Parts: sequence; C-alpha cells; structure tokens
Amino acid sequence: MTDKKKTTIILFSGDYDKTMAAYIIANGAAAYDHEVTIFHTFWGLNALRKDEKTQVKKGFMEKMFGKIMPRGADKMGLSKMNFAGFGPKMIKDVMKKHNAMPLPQLIEMAQEQDVKLVACTMTMDLLGLQKEELLDNIEYAGVAAYLADAQEGNVNLFI
Amino acid sequence: MTDKKKTTIILFSGDYDKTMAAYIIANGAAAYDHEVTIFHTFWGLNALRKDEKTQVKKGFMEKMFGKIMPRGADKMGLSKMNFAGFGPKMIKDVMKKHNAMPLPQLIEMAQEQDVKLVACTMTMDLLGLQKEELLDNIEYAGVAAYLADAQEGNVNLFI
Amino acid sequence: MTDKKKTTIILFSGDYDKTMAAYIIANGAAAYDHEVTIFHTFWGLNALRKDEKTQVKKGFMEKMFGKIMPRGADKMGLSKMNFAGFGPKMIKDVMKKHNAMPLPQLIEMAQEQDVKLVACTMTMDLLGLQKEELLDNIEYAGVAAYLADAQEGNVNLFI
Repeated sequence: MTDKKKTTIILFSGDYDKTMAAYIIANGAAAYDHEVTIFHTFWGLNALRKDEKTQVKKGFMEKMFGKIMPRGADKMGLSKMNFAGFGPKMIKDVMKKHNAMPLPQLIEMAQEQDVKLVACTMTMDLLGLQKEELLDNIEYAGVAAYLADAQEGNVNLFI
Repeated sequence: MTDKKKTTIILFSGDYDKTMAAYIIANGAAAYDHEVTIFHTFWGLNALRKDEKTQVKKGFMEKMFGKIMPRGADKMGLSKMNFAGFGPKMIKDVMKKHNAMPLPQLIEMAQEQDVKLVACTMTMDLLGLQKEELLDNIEYAGVAAYLADAQEGNVNLFI
Repeated sequence: MTDKKKTTIILFSGDYDKTMAAYIIANGAAAYDHEVTIFHTFWGLNALRKDEKTQVKKGFMEKMFGKIMPRGADKMGLSKMNFAGFGPKMIKDVMKKHNAMPLPQLIEMAQEQDVKLVACTMTMDLLGLQKEELLDNIEYAGVAAYLADAQEGNVNLFI
C-alpha cells in the first residue's frame, strides 16, 4: 500500500483515436506520478499485438479473428470518419505536422514510464490470442485483478 | 451507510460485447463484496427487455423504436465486426467452446448476486419502453438516484 | 480545496445521444451541488462549435476536418440507429413530445449552472479548430489540467 494516486483504464475499444486518448491520459497520469494500469480487453487487446505475423497453432475461429482484427496499434481504424482507412491516414498526417506522438510511440513511452499494461486473459481466450502474439513485458490477469486496482483508484475510466 | 465498497456502471451502449463487459465487471465486483448498481440508459435499456412480445399501448414513434431495437440481451449486435449479425454468432460460438457464460445468464447471475439493476425512467419515456416490457425485479430511477450512488462509489464506469 | 463533491466527464464522443447523456449527468451533478467539469476532446469538441460559419485561416487538412465534422451539438448524429440522419430527427421528435430539453439548451443550462466547459487544446490543434469557432465562455486546457480535477473527483466518466 503506497500513498500514490492511482489511475486505471479499461481499454475495451479497438479504435486508433480512442486508444490514443487512453495512452495520452495514461502517460499524463504517470508523469503526474500516479500508478497507472491499462487493462486491455476485447478489441482493446489489438493495441498489444505485435505487427509481424507469429507462428502459433490455432483453431478455425481463432484464425478468423486473428485475420480480421488489426495487427497492432498502428493498423487500427477510427471510431468516427474512418472512410475505409482514409481517416486514420488524415489523423496521422496532422499528427506528424503538429509533432504529436504516433500511437506505437505512445505505447513505448507508457512502458518506459512503468505504466502497467495488462491483457485480459478471458478475452484472449475468446478471441484466440496467444502470449506469443502480444508485446513483451506486459502482464496477464482477469477481472479480479482489475477490481483490486480500481477500488483503490482515484481515476477509473472505461474507454 | 455501510463500509462496503461500491461499484456503479452506467450502461448506455446496446452492444452485446459492451453489455457483456459491463455484466462481467458487475458480477466480479459483487463476488468481491462490492455493492453494485448498473444504471441502464438509452440503448442499454435493451438489455433489460423481455424477449417475448408484450401487449402494451403505444404511439407510432414508440412502436417504431420498439420494433427497431433488439428485444433483449441475446439479440444485440457487436460494437465491432458485427457483419450483419454474423459477428455475434462467432462470439457466441467461441464463448460456448470456452464455456463462457452467455449474456442472458450473466444477467441472471447478477440478479442472484443482488446487483441492483436500474432502468432510467427518462430514457424509457423517450424510447417508449414500458415496465411490462422489461425484466421483473428491477428498479426505476433517474439521474439523481444514479449520482447518489456514484458519489459514494469507488469504481464508477460509463460503458 | 473545498469540500464540494466533484464530477468530471471526458466527452470524447461526437454523438448526439452520448453528448446528451454527458450533459444530463453534468446538469444533474451541478444541481446536486457538485463542482462539474466537462473536458471536450476529439469529436466531443464538435459540441462546442458555433453553428454559424466563422472566418478563420486554415490549411487544407484543417479545412477538410472543419467541413466534415458537425458544426455544433444540434447537427450531430446518433451512436446507434442514425439511419442517415433520420435517427436524430426521431429522437428530437420524441424529446419534443416529452418536453425533454434539446441538446443546445442542455449546454446553455450547464453554462448557467457554472459547469466548467473545457476544450482540449491538443486535439483542437490536430483537428484544426480555433477559438473563434467555439462557444464563448469556455476554458482551454490539456490533459494535466484534466488530471488535476479528476484525481479529486468523486465521479469520473469517459463518454
């Protein structure tokens, strides 16, 4: 038990813009000296996928999900105005112009700031995602671990 | 006033996957001995609809909403990859394979664990939903009741 | 430091229904004597746009975003059942019938109740929105200011 403020974020969404918001808040809170956890569940797990293909054995449905879902943060679409992939390009262009950090770098920065990145094991099972396919140095847990963090949290968000 | 931890969830979304997340967190928190409230508003009210048709008198617009909106949790679509109803089937198939509890059972479990299920009366009015159409043993309240719970809450989420 | 309860809402979404939910909660919390902040970011900034066209100098991408995004709360679509703009009309019709306050009035009421309306400066930059295009009497801040409010908050939501 420390006296540090705590921020927890459930990242459910698999959209580039919402994931960006989650990581900007997380990095801000970490810089503000909060203990920060991002609990990735459902489509939010895609933010943790490695961008290269990984050799893992899977059933048919799991292969389907694996193919359909974006492989990593950089391949996600927007929650609004996605325009068949043109929207993310527009956003990335303006981000570059304004020197804003792209999402993969925001995730790296979070790891450097010791933001705890957690993958929800129950939804990993459902979507057929395996540890080999996800980023290194993340944690694996379920809803009980989330609640243990969140009930001590000052800022708890569902994104 | 008890010393119990409290979790409150506003369920605004009418998606199968988001509703599942809401009920998994709620059931987890109840098992963790929290007092838990799910406040169903807007499209989230559809999770509380009975799946059979109910005889109630309605105006034209209210009938339209009633027809268009899913009748109960099991008929909801996904927030992502819905694929005209194929997505929910995929999810339900993998859930079955992994022995995960389907949404209607998660709702029953919440009721058994005394999670307080509340229907927002203001949005019931707007969408023309009547008490006869919703599950038994739920409560009816407005934003003031939600805030009274949430301001004492340890974990407050909007889903 | 006051002993007042605090509510903070991040309004990320640019949907009419979600924005309505945000402002109903905010107005309720203000009536309940909470200090309330709505932090508008990404598509949520559109709720703060003036509905008339404003003469400002912009680059090409910024002009594009300006044209594509809804000019003010009243022009937003729904998160569900938008039906190419017919959905918002249906909702507004039933709201009128039930004497529910339309969104632009909910925003005015929030301002009268001293709800702090904040525009996220980082996403204003990204989307090319300028102060002249947004409502008067709002504040401008970034994620640090949000966190300073939220870490003292009793109810913190991401909508």
